[in-house]
Amino acid sequence: MNFSSKLLEAAVNEFAQLPGIGEKTALRLVLHLLNEPASGVERFTSALTALKNNIQYCQVCRNISDHPVCEICSSPRRDRSLVCVVEDTRDVMAIENTNQYTGLYHVLGGLISPIEGVGPADLHIESLIGRVQEGGITEIILALNATMEGDTTIFYLYKKLKDFPVSVTTIARGISFGGEIEYADEVTLGRSIATRVPYQHSLFK
Amino acid sequence: MNFSSKLLEAAVNEFAQLPGIGEKTALRLVLHLLNEPASGVERFTSALTALKNNIQYCQVCRNISDHPVCEICSSPRRDRSLVCVVEDTRDVMAIENTNQYTGLYHVLGGLISPIEGVGPADLHIESLIGRVQEGGITEIILALNATMEGDTTIFYLYKKLKDFPVSVTTIARGISFGGEIEYADEVTLGRSIATRVPYQHSLFK
Repeated sequence: MNFSSKLLEAAVNEFAQLPGIGEKTALRLVLHLLNEPASGVERFTSALTALKNNIQYCQVCRNISDHPVCEICSSPRRDRSLVCVVEDTRDVMAIENTNQYTGLYHVLGGLISPIEGVGPADLHIESLIGRVQEGGITEIILALNATMEGDTTIFYLYKKLKDFPVSVTTIARGISFGGEIEYADEVTLGRSIATRVPYQHSLFK
Repeated sequence: MNFSSKLLEAAVNEFAQLPGIGEKTALRLVLHLLNEPASGVERFTSALTALKNNIQYCQVCRNISDHPVCEICSSPRRDRSLVCVVEDTRDVMAIENTNQYTGLYHVLGGLISPIEGVGPADLHIESLIGRVQEGGITEIILALNATMEGDTTIFYLYKKLKDFPVSVTTIARGISFGGEIEYADEVTLGRSIATRVPYQHSLFK
C-alpha cells in the first residue's frame, strides 16, 4: 500500500501484526481511531498498557487475574476436588459460561508443540503436578482441543498423572446437541459410535 | 462474558468498539498482545499515540500527511489541472495503487449524511471551492461511492461547481472487467446498458 504518512503506516503495521487482521482491515481500524477524540485513543492505549503492566496470573491455577489468587480459586463455593485443565483463559471463560461446572481450573498457557518449539517445561505442568501432590484433588478433567498438540499434551499429562490417586478424564466428544447425523464429519461420527454411552433418561428431560 | 480480570475486560472492551471487531475477536487480539514481549505492546501503543498526536492533514488536499503539504500536492510530476474528489484517505490509496491517475486529490473527510448529522459544513467543501476559484483546474472528478450519501454529496458538489469554468465528471460505473454479465446485479447491468459507450479499440488491446 502507498501510505501518505509514515505515522499512519507505522500504526497500520502494528495492527496488521494481530492475528486475522490484514492490511486493509488494519487501515480501517486505525482510521476509525483517528476519527475518535484524542481521549478515545488515550483510553484505548492506556487500557492496553495497564493490562500489560499490571497483569497477574493466579498463583494457583495460572489464569489471568487481578489478584494473587483468582476469584474462582478463592471461592468457598467451588468444588476443590475437581480440577479442569485447559489451554488458556478463553477456555475458562467458555466453560464458565455454561454454568455447568463448579470445580477449579488449571491453565496450561499453551499446548505441547514440537513444531512451534513448545515443550512441557514451557507450560504450567509442574504446578499442576504440585497441586495434585498437595492432595484433596480426586479428578483431573483434561479439556484440551482435539488437535495433534492437544492429544500430545493429553498423553503427556496422562503419563505424569497416572501414578497419583486421581482419576483422569477428558471431556466427551461426539455429535453436537442439535447436530444432524447426516452432516457430521466421519471422524466425529465414527468415534461417537465407538464411544457410545448408556442411555440416561435424566439427561433428556 | 465472564472476565477473570477487570484489566483484561477493559482492554477487550476498547478493542470491541472498533468496527467489525466483536467481543470474541477482541479477546483473541488482546491475548495475542499479552503474549508479546512488553516492548511489543509499547511499540503498538506508541505508534497509535504518535499518529494521533502528530497527525497532519495536507493544507491543500486534506489528505493525511506527515508534512504541511503532502507529497502528491507538492510533486512537480502531477497534473495540476485535474482534481479527484474522494471521501477519505483509503480512496486515495486505492486510486494511487492503480497507477492510472496523475492528477491531484481532494479529500472530503466524509459524505453528506442527514441521518448521521453530517452536513456540507462538516466536510472539506469550502476549501475545494477555494482551489477551483484560484484557477488552473479544468476538471473535477467526483470519485464517491454510489450510495445515497455519495449521490447526495455528488449532487451538492455539482450545484456548487457548475458555475465555475471546470468540467465535472464522475468515475465510470458498470460491469467490472472480468465480471460475468449473467451474475451482475440488475441495477448495475441496467445502468451499464443505459450508459453504454462507443467501442474504443485501443482499450481492448
